[in-house]
Amino acid sequence: MTAKFSFTLHGSDGLARLGSLHTRHGDIRTPAFMPVGTVGTVKGLYLDQVKETGTDVILGNTYHLMLRPGAEQVAELGGLHKLIGWDRPILTDSGGFQIMSLAKIRKITEQAAIFQSHIDGKRHELSPERAMDIQRLLGSDIQMQLDQCIEYPHTEKAAEKAMQLSLRWAERSRAAFGKQPGRGNFGIVQGGVNARLRRESAEGLKSIGFEGYAIGGLAVGEGQALMLDTIELTVPHLPMDRPRYLMGVGTPEDIVESAARGIDMFDCVLPTRSGRHGQAFTRFGKINLRNARHAADPRPLDPESPCPALSQYSRAYLHHLIRSGELLGMMLLSWANIAYYQALMQEIRGAIEAGRFEEFRRATKEQWKLGDVAP
Amino acid sequence: MTAKFSFTLHGSDGLARLGSLHTRHGDIRTPAFMPVGTVGTVKGLYLDQVKETGTDVILGNTYHLMLRPGAEQVAELGGLHKLIGWDRPILTDSGGFQIMSLAKIRKITEQAAIFQSHIDGKRHELSPERAMDIQRLLGSDIQMQLDQCIEYPHTEKAAEKAMQLSLRWAERSRAAFGKQPGRGNFGIVQGGVNARLRRESAEGLKSIGFEGYAIGGLAVGEGQALMLDTIELTVPHLPMDRPRYLMGVGTPEDIVESAARGIDMFDCVLPTRSGRHGQAFTRFGKINLRNARHAADPRPLDPESPCPALSQYSRAYLHHLIRSGELLGMMLLSWANIAYYQALMQEIRGAIEAGRFEEFRRATKEQWKLGDVAP
Repeated sequence: MTAKFSFTLHGSDGLARLGSLHTRHGDIRTPAFMPVGTVGTVKGLYLDQVKETGTDVILGNTYHLMLRPGAEQVAELGGLHKLIGWDRPILTDSGGFQIMSLAKIRKITEQAAIFQSHIDGKRHELSPERAMDIQRLLGSDIQMQLDQCIEYPHTEKAAEKAMQLSLRWAERSRAAFGKQPGRGNFGIVQGGVNARLRRESAEGLKSIGFEGYAIGGLAVGEGQALMLDTIELTVPHLPMDRPRYLMGVGTPEDIVESAARGIDMFDCVLPTRSGRHGQAFTRFGKINLRNARHAADPRPLDPESPCPALSQYSRAYLHHLIRSGELLGMMLLSWANIAYYQALMQEIRGAIEAGRFEEFRRATKEQWKLGDVAP
Repeated sequence: MTAKFSFTLHGSDGLARLGSLHTRHGDIRTPAFMPVGTVGTVKGLYLDQVKETGTDVILGNTYHLMLRPGAEQVAELGGLHKLIGWDRPILTDSGGFQIMSLAKIRKITEQAAIFQSHIDGKRHELSPERAMDIQRLLGSDIQMQLDQCIEYPHTEKAAEKAMQLSLRWAERSRAAFGKQPGRGNFGIVQGGVNARLRRESAEGLKSIGFEGYAIGGLAVGEGQALMLDTIELTVPHLPMDRPRYLMGVGTPEDIVESAARGIDMFDCVLPTRSGRHGQAFTRFGKINLRNARHAADPRPLDPESPCPALSQYSRAYLHHLIRSGELLGMMLLSWANIAYYQALMQEIRGAIEAGRFEEFRRATKEQWKLGDVAP
């Protein structure tokens, strides 16, 4: 357990970067994918399985955890790591995104976000200070500032207003974070898809100074092209020596393309959510196990994978389980998808290290296009 | 892999019996509890976990598997063992019980049960011969005759009619079973809660001759006392040298009390179904994890259990997972319950072997009454 939170950049290939983030709960190899452990569980997986896929860090949602079991309750139980049985790093978001997407009624004031719980309708107030307080109580290794997320599409005026508020909240978040050895505090760049706003947001955050910088407000409906454009125009304004985290992204292709543009960290519910609905992500692209053509197919999803969910179960059995609505089908495909995502991250890191990222990127996208080969 | 299907009685203590059932997929230690793998999965568990709990045999449902994926489909894929990845014995029921409890519309003729699938409303016909055919296609190690189950309460006349039909179906099932080395065919005693009918059913089945005898039509609402009475009046008419299987039973107490009356095999959905709904069975009795008093309780369900689900997760976390409707909560409690059931079976077998079954029975029931001790 090192006391110092820091980022080491080992090298780069084009804009793609290879690094390590050092935290009190160990190192995070970047580019990193963080499985989402919404309420303190990566849905459908045992944390031992998550670990075995090569996951260095998982994400917890402040919004969900503040509602249930509650931050003080988690602290009393020894913190989130102890409660759930995970000894590696945890990043927690600040709740901004869920307040926009989940809360029944919400109101944003200068002081705080005021919202009704989607669970019981109870009124809650989340200020930048309280968001940091909650994350400290949870014992999170990487704590995000509270920001205001807005929906897409939006007017420039609305994007600017939310970005400016997020900047003021960034300052308050930073002050509230204080000194926490071995833990880091990340600012979040907002500004919609507007180049000027993104630049101003990044510059503002840099002058406050954070251990890392996230790009928020993307993957909310703008499409991949506009998302990648926005990453391209934001990244140059972020410091080279700090990790860059693209929030809520994405598909395997989104990740490869964003890593190519200098992103170091990702999180997304896609692998587990898709898994629960019968969709697998594999080396050969997406495979929908609900499809009738898998009913008699004895092949596993990927015979060469070290993950049993990919190599030890036939498509016929997975198809049957998913069609029957069985828990095991959801469990296996969620596991398979997290395993594939982490295998992909390992390949990305290896390709950057070997200086052949462009070749890897081309070959990987070709292989996805091959699709699901018939038996 | 032995070719011969047989039963060895190692000893007894009172009416309770210790034995081994030998099948082509290995031995089953009796008294045995068979977790229910309805459609080819013990709900919420990996089969490796099922194995580690000390499970020798699981049960598959002919009714479910004939509808989906279909018996011929399973056979083409190499049989049920191969499809699901289980190399130990499998017992399949014959579908009679599910036709009564699940099928939308059903009609029983001398020839067959005719019913509509609960999945898509499609019409199916299940004769005694087809039920055996399906079980052979599945590759089941223990194949049950087709019987007619009736609901409780019932008239004596209805019970007699269903019992007589079940006897005629038993004869046809036995003929259809033919010779299958290393596999066994069990007859099912019916007759409701009527002593004469149960005796006539048992005598009729014995004169046909089966590798084992089941008691069907119990645990359908008659209550524990009447169930145990019916077991008591049926068991004396069953041969000593063949295994006795009480279908669909039950709670831990049902099992101890039935083993005390000479039953060798059990199956029940209770441990997994209750687990999915937040209820744990433990050495200390039933524990409802939904209950608010567990919210701050750091204790595991049973610190001394070798099963991680019982010893490695706090009640607070289990409570949180169950309240949040998380898959992991269902997975952990299903696993914990199967582990406890198998630990109980191991204790039952140990107590019979040591000749202290009565003492064990008393002490175990006392311990259950202690209930869930506050921290």
